[in-house]
Amino acid sequence: MPAIAIIGAGLIGASWAALFTARGHDVLAWDPAAAARADFAVRTRNMQRQLRPLGLKGKGRIGVVATLAEAVRDAIWIQENGPELIPLKRALYAEIEAANKRAIIASSTSSFQWSQLSAGMKRPGRLIVAHPFNPPHLVPLVEIYARSKTVADQAFAFYEAMGKVPIRIRREAPGHVANRLASALWREAVNIVAEGIADVADVDKALVEGPGLRWAIQGAHMTYHLGGGPGGIAHYLAHLGPSQEKRWAALGNPKLDAATRQKLIRGVAREAAGRSIADLAAERDAMLLALLKLKTRK
Amino acid sequence: MPAIAIIGAGLIGASWAALFTARGHDVLAWDPAAAARADFAVRTRNMQRQLRPLGLKGKGRIGVVATLAEAVRDAIWIQENGPELIPLKRALYAEIEAANKRAIIASSTSSFQWSQLSAGMKRPGRLIVAHPFNPPHLVPLVEIYARSKTVADQAFAFYEAMGKVPIRIRREAPGHVANRLASALWREAVNIVAEGIADVADVDKALVEGPGLRWAIQGAHMTYHLGGGPGGIAHYLAHLGPSQEKRWAALGNPKLDAATRQKLIRGVAREAAGRSIADLAAERDAMLLALLKLKTRK
Repeated sequence: MPAIAIIGAGLIGASWAALFTARGHDVLAWDPAAAARADFAVRTRNMQRQLRPLGLKGKGRIGVVATLAEAVRDAIWIQENGPELIPLKRALYAEIEAANKRAIIASSTSSFQWSQLSAGMKRPGRLIVAHPFNPPHLVPLVEIYARSKTVADQAFAFYEAMGKVPIRIRREAPGHVANRLASALWREAVNIVAEGIADVADVDKALVEGPGLRWAIQGAHMTYHLGGGPGGIAHYLAHLGPSQEKRWAALGNPKLDAATRQKLIRGVAREAAGRSIADLAAERDAMLLALLKLKTRK
Repeated sequence: MPAIAIIGAGLIGASWAALFTARGHDVLAWDPAAAARADFAVRTRNMQRQLRPLGLKGKGRIGVVATLAEAVRDAIWIQENGPELIPLKRALYAEIEAANKRAIIASSTSSFQWSQLSAGMKRPGRLIVAHPFNPPHLVPLVEIYARSKTVADQAFAFYEAMGKVPIRIRREAPGHVANRLASALWREAVNIVAEGIADVADVDKALVEGPGLRWAIQGAHMTYHLGGGPGGIAHYLAHLGPSQEKRWAALGNPKLDAATRQKLIRGVAREAAGRSIADLAAERDAMLLALLKLKTRK
């Protein structure tokens, strides 16, 4: 039975499976842990249910098998979501290469780069990085690194058919693209708290009711294009480029020392105001779905 | 006639006026430039129209007067939106202090801090920073710096009544809070392009279809709280704090040199794909309104 193989059946694996099956594709999952295999179908169905309001009502079959070879043998696509450990991932790729000679092997890795993972493979060109963003069944972004344009094109076609928005990583870098942006923003968010400029809840509010609201709609570069008025980004760079460079120099470089950690932990507790992680995740997912519906209606 | 005074009747002034009048308050505007005075009412009404879908249908009167003294004499609140030049702003405050002894003077300044602007005032405690985010009639955030808690409380009450979301700057810093975050993110966005990791349009797409989508809903600190699983941010910091510090060290520090400027200008042109600044701003505003409607419905 040709299906999409899910190798590593934890949260990320189940989230991919929810999306694939809601789009009508069958999945066949494997995980070395019996507990993960046992929970997989229920987990996947729970996430699948969140996709119905978006009109994704497909009923792909969810299979779970006891060996990796069985999962990948007839797979048309292989999504790998193993633990973030290089030797472990390399061992998985060796097993996959022995059992399936053709399908693309897409790694959900957030920490590693293609060149670190593909070393030692018989046909490294089959491996790609296809890094989703949390929660992967809801957030459209997937970051693709492929060695050849042909394979990159195949990956774009595959993920676009799944309703994802792929972008192409042209040169490998730690954190790919989105996590580098997130990390850069958080560094200054931590600095603002550490320096006492504003407290945790107000920093988050400034983001959500300010630039974050725009960034759900238009990117950072485009924002500065609009900030340049009729002359666009060329005008902006000519007139305000030097003041941006000065601003950059005034940003902070905080350490996550004990005092800063305490400020962050206490500040987030105040901001959460008694809501559990599950409450907060449910709130986020509900808004995210409404926002995604809005964006697809456009 | 008690009204809100708008000192400096350019785009920011008109945007504030659109919000205030759509909430039913009268405004009285002044600008030294006759052209700005002549355009003000039409500009304000155009922006006001954008607020109707949000249910803001107030019909406050829009007055324009020929002298600053007339605008502020009976004002209950004074919103200053003059050019970003310290001597000019200080001269405005001296004139305002001579004509009105009580109302709070709120500066929309993005570049300066309270201590730079209030120097030389008879009653510096009357001055506050109340920095909006573009476009101010649509984006809820307003960043408040006030010397005393009493005045800060008054400012919160005033802007909340106008439907804004105020946050409190507790220690002065260039860029206040939101522009520091925006600047930190853009620095890495520029670096990614300069280093050839991804192109302009893909960086923007990664943001808009990835973290930007979440940041319209939940702030950066809260995101890492959820990223920590059931243990929240305390767990995240204990287990992934060191890897964040490593990631921070791997972020870039680009210069806006000629080569990078060219990459940005060409990349934005490709991303805009023929759409004018006006088209792009209209697209952004339409989505922003839909998003704001969604958030207020919550």
